[in-house]
Amino acid sequence: MTARQTLHILDQAVALDGVDSNTYTGRTNPAYQNMIGPFGGVIGATLLNAIIQHPERLGEPVSFTVHYAAPISDGEFTVRLRIMRTNRSSQHWFVELIQEEQTAAFATAVTAIRRDTWGTTDAEYPQVPNAESVAVTPPLPHAPWTNCYEMRFIDGFPGVDEQREHPSQSRLWLRDQPPRPLDFVSLAAICDAFFPRLFVRRPKRVPFGTVALTTYFHADTAQLAEQGSAPVLGLAKGVHFGKGFFDQSAEIWGSDGALLASSHQIVYYKE
Amino acid sequence: MTARQTLHILDQAVALDGVDSNTYTGRTNPAYQNMIGPFGGVIGATLLNAIIQHPERLGEPVSFTVHYAAPISDGEFTVRLRIMRTNRSSQHWFVELIQEEQTAAFATAVTAIRRDTWGTTDAEYPQVPNAESVAVTPPLPHAPWTNCYEMRFIDGFPGVDEQREHPSQSRLWLRDQPPRPLDFVSLAAICDAFFPRLFVRRPKRVPFGTVALTTYFHADTAQLAEQGSAPVLGLAKGVHFGKGFFDQSAEIWGSDGALLASSHQIVYYKE
Repeated sequence: MTARQTLHILDQAVALDGVDSNTYTGRTNPAYQNMIGPFGGVIGATLLNAIIQHPERLGEPVSFTVHYAAPISDGEFTVRLRIMRTNRSSQHWFVELIQEEQTAAFATAVTAIRRDTWGTTDAEYPQVPNAESVAVTPPLPHAPWTNCYEMRFIDGFPGVDEQREHPSQSRLWLRDQPPRPLDFVSLAAICDAFFPRLFVRRPKRVPFGTVALTTYFHADTAQLAEQGSAPVLGLAKGVHFGKGFFDQSAEIWGSDGALLASSHQIVYYKE
Repeated sequence: MTARQTLHILDQAVALDGVDSNTYTGRTNPAYQNMIGPFGGVIGATLLNAIIQHPERLGEPVSFTVHYAAPISDGEFTVRLRIMRTNRSSQHWFVELIQEEQTAAFATAVTAIRRDTWGTTDAEYPQVPNAESVAVTPPLPHAPWTNCYEMRFIDGFPGVDEQREHPSQSRLWLRDQPPRPLDFVSLAAICDAFFPRLFVRRPKRVPFGTVALTTYFHADTAQLAEQGSAPVLGLAKGVHFGKGFFDQSAEIWGSDGALLASSHQIVYYKE
């Protein structure tokens, strides 16, 4: 028994061992296994975790882009960080995930000291029933990582033929399973927990994989702490599908109706 | 007189001189001067140009993320490329813009061989008047780069108080000035040519700057060639503003009604 085993499964999965201040080792976790290889959301969260725990980090995550450059094998990997630029109140980051001396994934990020300013939200809060009144959707047997989330689909579950206000939109309440207080690491993973819009739009099963994902964090640490382990409201919809790639955009809303993050990704698909 | 001076002003601005296959030098162009420093769209386009002209490039740009890490000084800069990973039909890139031995901007990209697949567009084509029937908006005197675009605002010109269907939305026809056939380089720059949503939403002038921008290219080379130098239809809207940062999303539609690109950015603002 190690201390790590008492941690939440997500904290176990994103844990890193320091080699030096810019080099760490981590490992894939079977709990977050996807159909092939690990669930990308937790790989991204691991790279963000490397930034968050870095001794020279300035401020909080504002922008985060992950590239899934190649299939990730189950097992160990090395994470290497580089501070690209440090300004007075913001910092730019580059992080690589290396397996067998090749880059399998990499990420860029902006961290910044958040200050109170004027603000407003122009995205529209989705009018949906409360989480408690929506049934929990069973996990997908072929995607073990879905056991690590409680998902309550209001609409847009892949493959279910239904009338929707938008042809590739899903709305769902979701949180870590077991419940865990929300932070940047879990929010980053949740931003990648939306099923590919291709399968909401078209029932045919084809090979697919996220190529790159960008998340903008609107919440700061205090706001995430307020959310605690209550479900967040996710909305995802497709933008364009064609010539082997599609993009989808997502919003994550807090239980108080605040937009916590917006996220966009481009996904490869065959046929 | 050099051959470069006979090129379109955009091609002059993004031109690079090779030092070796992964190192180039470029320079800011006064025509694309912004209020302070160069127009970010052309800086991004220059980094994309470095990838496009690279002898080992595989396929066409699919995803492109630029980080504006620090102010860029007028004058020379060095561009350094790194191929992060080459797969069978896709490639991941990392590019840096260096001034005075520091990274001032950097970008990541995915290029890929596009193949015919099933496709559809879920974003809604904006119902607007034809370009010819919309007046050309005069360039902004304090932003010289706006002279390099022909913009025809349908709605959402910053600071104009009007009723809008969305509080921070702008719709405009735009193209290079003088007109130039559309390609990935010019499309990348156009994706950053939308004025900050903050000033559409709120008339107060405050310091601001794009921190990171991500563009997904939906069009391939053939489709861009078909567009030629006709105006494209741009739509941009804000998502969330708060704690010193806001994000905005944009769509670029071709004159045949096809979505050419979608683009997202996060912008710093003061107050």
